[in-house]
Amino acid sequence: MKVIAVGSIALDTIKTPFGEAKDVLGGSASYFSISASYFTSVGIIGVVGKDFPEEFLDLFRKMGIDTRGIKIEDGKTFRWVGEYGYDLGNPKTLDLQLNVFERFEPQVSDEMGNVEILFLAAIHPELQLEVMKKVNARLILSDTRDHWIKGERNKLLEVLKKTNGVLINEEEARMLSEEYNILKAARAIMKMGPEFLVIKRGEYGAVLFYKERIFYVPAYPLEVIFDPTGAGDSFAGGFAGFLAHTGDYSFDNIKKAVVYGSAMGSFAVEKFSVEGLINLNEGEILERAKKFREFVEFEL
Amino acid sequence: MKVIAVGSIALDTIKTPFGEAKDVLGGSASYFSISASYFTSVGIIGVVGKDFPEEFLDLFRKMGIDTRGIKIEDGKTFRWVGEYGYDLGNPKTLDLQLNVFERFEPQVSDEMGNVEILFLAAIHPELQLEVMKKVNARLILSDTRDHWIKGERNKLLEVLKKTNGVLINEEEARMLSEEYNILKAARAIMKMGPEFLVIKRGEYGAVLFYKERIFYVPAYPLEVIFDPTGAGDSFAGGFAGFLAHTGDYSFDNIKKAVVYGSAMGSFAVEKFSVEGLINLNEGEILERAKKFREFVEFEL
Repeated sequence: MKVIAVGSIALDTIKTPFGEAKDVLGGSASYFSISASYFTSVGIIGVVGKDFPEEFLDLFRKMGIDTRGIKIEDGKTFRWVGEYGYDLGNPKTLDLQLNVFERFEPQVSDEMGNVEILFLAAIHPELQLEVMKKVNARLILSDTRDHWIKGERNKLLEVLKKTNGVLINEEEARMLSEEYNILKAARAIMKMGPEFLVIKRGEYGAVLFYKERIFYVPAYPLEVIFDPTGAGDSFAGGFAGFLAHTGDYSFDNIKKAVVYGSAMGSFAVEKFSVEGLINLNEGEILERAKKFREFVEFEL
Repeated sequence: MKVIAVGSIALDTIKTPFGEAKDVLGGSASYFSISASYFTSVGIIGVVGKDFPEEFLDLFRKMGIDTRGIKIEDGKTFRWVGEYGYDLGNPKTLDLQLNVFERFEPQVSDEMGNVEILFLAAIHPELQLEVMKKVNARLILSDTRDHWIKGERNKLLEVLKKTNGVLINEEEARMLSEEYNILKAARAIMKMGPEFLVIKRGEYGAVLFYKERIFYVPAYPLEVIFDPTGAGDSFAGGFAGFLAHTGDYSFDNIKKAVVYGSAMGSFAVEKFSVEGLINLNEGEILERAKKFREFVEFEL
């Protein structure tokens, strides 16, 4: 395996202005791994309950994802019920049941001991630290969210110290750095440890900060964003998958990874749940990635 | 003259988290014309009161701006007192006195009859229509704001029918089109008349829509944005100034104009009032414009 992802696997019920989907596959590790599977070999570390549909495990396997790290425990799978408004911004959480995820103990098997990239999705920093200790990765990427920034700052700082690259939302970057200005925020976060940082800005695209260098990519223009859930994790999957496949961590290659990540994020939001990610081919992905160049190129 | 701008000339009092400036030069026509003056010959159509400092008229003249269209009327100049919060987003208007601007009657002299570009800043659509009738321009650019979208929609639609290119804020584009999605919004606005549209997104840069083609440019990354006032009008000045200078209205050239506009907008926000715009040279402007390419270029 080239990439290991540790994160949530969930059953989501999602309401958007365009419709509703009930008990569909969700969770950061799901979006991440399906997205990354187009670029490289991926394994998931996670937990589900006995109610987790076999068809979703089959889907992971069909995508070539190693599911041996998914523990099936007595109890129910993590469930989230969310509703998006017309602006498709931050969803309102209508219900959240951690269920088996509350007692999640990441299981790292021997064959997962050495990988190219370890992706730590936005879970408790304590768990992120635990997995870091067990997995020997060339590159560690981490994400986090407001909840841990507010409640587990010290643990999170420990994680960041050992992280090579952070992928984070703009709001969270501001909260973590206590800086409103995005350039100041990025510099403050890089001082916490990471060599690079990708700030995800939703409909405004993403920005890569790599030492003193900056790279912007817009969001792919879509007339209909069907379901924004998982956009960030799908971005991370394309990003990490491409990087792990190439094994090249230069600025130029990380820029490419940002573009592939943006392409994968745009596919994810075109349909409910992971539907937009499961029937792609390499040609489509490359074509969409190339579009990003068309959108920004100019001669002076 | 290659470019005529009609808009406000004001005395601004501005409070930002970084300081305060009292009775400084402001107004859409001021920012626009100073910015455009680096690219081409510009004239202003506007009105000020007897209290308008001679030094500001001298400044316009020093920048090579034709001030013969500025009427000096009995009474006081348009005054605006605004305060920006820490996010430097929409300012709070603490005081607004239209003064002589309330009875503004644009004066078009004969030598202003034929120009390359007419820029209609965000003033009453009735005035925009009046100036359109009197000026024979190869290209008409217009801006507007929430106030006219809400209160003078029909008149504004008349303006848009005769407008070649719209420059507008993102919020206003949504309000005008009644579409949240920016792509849908742009398409709806182009159906109202304009062949192209630039949506200004503040710290997220700008997007050009030209028929079915799209071009994104990020905002120039600045650690300190001193005073966001006039960023959009400075953008418009660089944009229109470059276009008028070249006389080329192809997509490729409009893209360049968006980049020059972005560069000028970034200079404007680095200092209070028009200070950031008045001591530039061509080399600096070109250098900053080139930076935009560095920020977005990548190879797949």
